Amino acid sequence: MVFRVLDIAKRVHDHTWKLDPIIRSLLDTDFYKLMMLQMIWKMHRDVDATFTLINRTTSIRLAEEIDIGELRAQLDHARTVRLTKKEAIWLAGNSFYGRKQIFEPDFLAWLAEFRLPDYEIAQKDGQFELHFHGKWTDTTMWEIPALAIINELRSRAAMRGMGPFELDVLYARAKAKMWEKVERLKQLPGLSISDFGTRRRHSFLWQRWCVQALQEGIGEAFTGTSNVLLAMDNDLEAVGTNAHELPMVYAALAETDEGIARANYKVLEDWNRLYGGNLKIVLPDTFGTAAFLRHAPDWVADWTGFRPDSAPPIEGGERIIRWWQEQGRDPRDKILIFSDGLDVDTIINTYRHFEGRVRMAFGWGTNLTNDFVDCAPRRNDQLRAISLVCKVTEANGLPAVKLSDNPRKATGDPREIERYLRIFGSEERAEKPVYV
Amino acid sequence: MVFRVLDIAKRVHDHTWKLDPIIRSLLDTDFYKLMMLQMIWKMHRDVDATFTLINRTTSIRLAEEIDIGELRAQLDHARTVRLTKKEAIWLAGNSFYGRKQIFEPDFLAWLAEFRLPDYEIAQKDGQFELHFHGKWTDTTMWEIPALAIINELRSRAAMRGMGPFELDVLYARAKAKMWEKVERLKQLPGLSISDFGTRRRHSFLWQRWCVQALQEGIGEAFTGTSNVLLAMDNDLEAVGTNAHELPMVYAALAETDEGIARANYKVLEDWNRLYGGNLKIVLPDTFGTAAFLRHAPDWVADWTGFRPDSAPPIEGGERIIRWWQEQGRDPRDKILIFSDGLDVDTIINTYRHFEGRVRMAFGWGTNLTNDFVDCAPRRNDQLRAISLVCKVTEANGLPAVKLSDNPRKATGDPREIERYLRIFGSEERAEKPVYV
Repeated sequence: MVFRVLDIAKRVHDHTWKLDPIIRSLLDTDFYKLMMLQMIWKMHRDVDATFTLINRTTSIRLAEEIDIGELRAQLDHARTVRLTKKEAIWLAGNSFYGRKQIFEPDFLAWLAEFRLPDYEIAQKDGQFELHFHGKWTDTTMWEIPALAIINELRSRAAMRGMGPFELDVLYARAKAKMWEKVERLKQLPGLSISDFGTRRRHSFLWQRWCVQALQEGIGEAFTGTSNVLLAMDNDLEAVGTNAHELPMVYAALAETDEGIARANYKVLEDWNRLYGGNLKIVLPDTFGTAAFLRHAPDWVADWTGFRPDSAPPIEGGERIIRWWQEQGRDPRDKILIFSDGLDVDTIINTYRHFEGRVRMAFGWGTNLTNDFVDCAPRRNDQLRAISLVCKVTEANGLPAVKLSDNPRKATGDPREIERYLRIFGSEERAEKPVYV
Repeated sequence: MVFRVLDIAKRVHDHTWKLDPIIRSLLDTDFYKLMMLQMIWKMHRDVDATFTLINRTTSIRLAEEIDIGELRAQLDHARTVRLTKKEAIWLAGNSFYGRKQIFEPDFLAWLAEFRLPDYEIAQKDGQFELHFHGKWTDTTMWEIPALAIINELRSRAAMRGMGPFELDVLYARAKAKMWEKVERLKQLPGLSISDFGTRRRHSFLWQRWCVQALQEGIGEAFTGTSNVLLAMDNDLEAVGTNAHELPMVYAALAETDEGIARANYKVLEDWNRLYGGNLKIVLPDTFGTAAFLRHAPDWVADWTGFRPDSAPPIEGGERIIRWWQEQGRDPRDKILIFSDGLDVDTIINTYRHFEGRVRMAFGWGTNLTNDFVDCAPRRNDQLRAISLVCKVTEANGLPAVKLSDNPRKATGDPREIERYLRIFGSEERAEKPVYV
C-alpha cells in the first residue's frame, strides 16, 4: 500500500480562514513609489494630496463585480501591514541602480513606522468612489496596493464559479501563453525588459510566476521588476524612477500659469539634486510631450533617457530622437524606456524599428501580468484586464491635472483641463483607445 | 503575519521514499484483458504463452534511456500488487456493457489470488529483452503493466534534467494542448470517444488528468475508458473487448494450415458463447482483413461491429462497409470502432467522412495520453511516444504470428510469417509508417 500524505492542519486552516490577504508586505509596491516617497518626505513633507481611483473602462461596473465588504476587508488588512526588519535591512543594504544607500537612514527610520492611511469609500452608479486624503507622504503609498487589491478581487470574483478542473485549465493555458511570449522574446539579442505589472496584475502569485518565467526564460534580457518585494525575494534589480504625480502636484501647487508651465522642469531639478545618474529618466508627457520639449531647458538633453508613456512607442520614440538630434545629442548614447500598453508584438516591432539607433528598455505591464484572454475553458470576460488607475486629484486642496499625449488618459476637473490646455497647447495630442 | 503551512511529514516522506510505484493496482490495466482473461481461464487454462516486449521504434535505444535496476524494481513492485476487496466487490457488482455479473464468481475468486508471474530480462544492443513465460492466464496480464511501466520510466528519464519551472511549463503546455483538442472534439455532435491510452501513457497521473479533461470537456461524448481502475474511480464505463492475442494463440495451437485459416472464426465462436451482445465486436486484421472477410462465415455479418485496427480509418472503414453491403446488411445498424493511431484530425476527418452512414466509436490511445510534442521548454525528443508493444510470441512452445494489414506491424518469426502469408495471402496489405 502506498502512504498517502494529507496535511490535516492545512486542510483545516484552508476552510476556516477569514481572509486571504492580497497585500502582505509594504514592499509589494512599485520601486518608483519609494524613490518618489523619499523625495516627497525630504522636500514636501507638509503637502496634502488626495488620490482617487479612476476606472477608465467605464463599461465595467466594478462595484457590481466586487463586494464592497471584501474590498474593505482587504484595504483594512493592508493598513495593518508594517515594514519588517528584514525588509528595512534589505532596503538599507542593497544597491539600487548601482548606488549604495540610495535611501537615507532617517528616511528608513520613518518608513519603519509607516502605515497606510485611512480611506474613504462609497458606491455610485455601479462604480466605487475611493479616495485617500491626507499627507502626500502617506496617500501616495496607496496607489499600487489599492490597484492590486481591486484587480485581484476582480480576478477572484471572475473565478468564483469555476471548478477545480476549469481553474487548472485556465492557469495551464495562461502559463502556456506566457511561455510562447518568452520564446518569442528570446529571439531578440540584447533585449532589456522589466516587469512593470504590479498594479494591473491578475494576482500576486501570478505576477510572481510571470517574473520567474522571465527570469528562467530570457535570463540576462530580464533586467528587473518594479515590484520591490519580488526584487528582494528573487535577487532581481528593483526598477523604476518617477511618475506623473510629481509634475501634477508641482503644477497644482504652483497656481500661476507660469508656475504650471515650469512645474515639470522643477521636478527634474529636484530629482537631479536627490538622485542623478542612471535615475535621470525624463517622463515628458504629463502635460503633453510637444510642449515639454519645446520649452525644455538645455540640460534636459543631458539626461540619460526618456520614458514616453502615452504615445504609440515608435511615434513617441521618433519624436524624442528627433529632439535629441536637434539638441546635437547622439541618440545612441541615450535610452528610451517604453512602458505604455506593451505586448510582445509591440515590443518586437519597436525593438526592430529602433535597433542600433538608440538604447531601449521595455517596462512590460498589464499584458505581462494579466493576460488571460481566451484562457478560460468557458468564455469569461471578467478576466480581461481593465484600465484602472489611482491618480492624485488634489494637492493642498488645489486641483491636480494630467493632460497626457492621449486625451483619453487625461485626468482632472474639465475646467482645469481647459486651463492647462491653454497653457500647454494640444499639438501632437491624439486620441488612442486605452485598453490597459 | 500569514500562517504558512508546510507538511513536514510529507516532505520527509518525499525525500526518503525508495520507489514511486507505477503500478499500484491490478485494475490499472485494460478492460479487454479481464474479458479475455476470463475466457482464457475458462477455456484454455492449461495453455502456456510467452509474451515478449517489442520496440518497433528501433532508433530509440530503450536500455540506454532506462536504468535496468529501476525497471526491475518497478516490475518487482507490480508483482506484489493484489486485487483489493474493494476492487473485487466492484468487479462483481458493476455492470459492464449493460450486463450484470459479466464476471463469474469462480473467476473472481481465482482473480483475488492472482499475482503477476516472474519475468526474464536482459539487455542486448541497447534494447531490453523482456519475456514473460508461463500460463497464458498469468502472462497475458503483463502486457499492459509492462508497457505502462516502461513508458512511464522513459518519461521520468526524459524529465530528470528538468527544473521545477521547466516541469511546470511542460505540463501547462500539455494541458493547454489537450484542452485545444477537447474544444475541437466538442464541435462534433453525437461523437463517441473512449480512452484507450493506458499502455502508451506518459504517466498514470497524466492519463488520469486526460480522462478527467474529457469527462469535463465533452461530457456525454466521452463514453468510457479502457482503464479499469480509472473507470472505477471516476464512475466511467470500462470499455474494450478483445485483442489479437486470441487469434494468434488459437492459430499457433492449430498447427495445420487449415486450422490456422480457421482460428479467427473459432475465436469469434468462443467469444460469442461467453459474451455476445454489445461485446460482439470483430477484430479482423490479425492475419489481414481481406482474407478474413473473404472466408468469413455468414454469421460474422450479424455481429454488432468491427474494429479495423491497422488500415487508415477511412480506407479500413469503407472496406468493412462494402462487405456489410455485399452481405445485405445496413451499415447504419452497425458500429465501427477506430483505434489505430488516432489524433484529433483523424478523428474529425473520419467522423465527417462516415457521418450518417454507420455508427462510430473512437478508441483514442497514444495521442490522448502521451502527446508532449513541443511541450518542453527545451527541445526534448525523449518525451516523444514510441511504438512499443508486448505481444504473444509462443503458445505451448509453438510460434505465434501476427500479419496485420500493415506489414510493419507484423510480429513473429520471419519463416512463420512466410507460412502465414501463403495461407492468408497479402492482398490489400500496405506498408504505412508506424508512429505509435
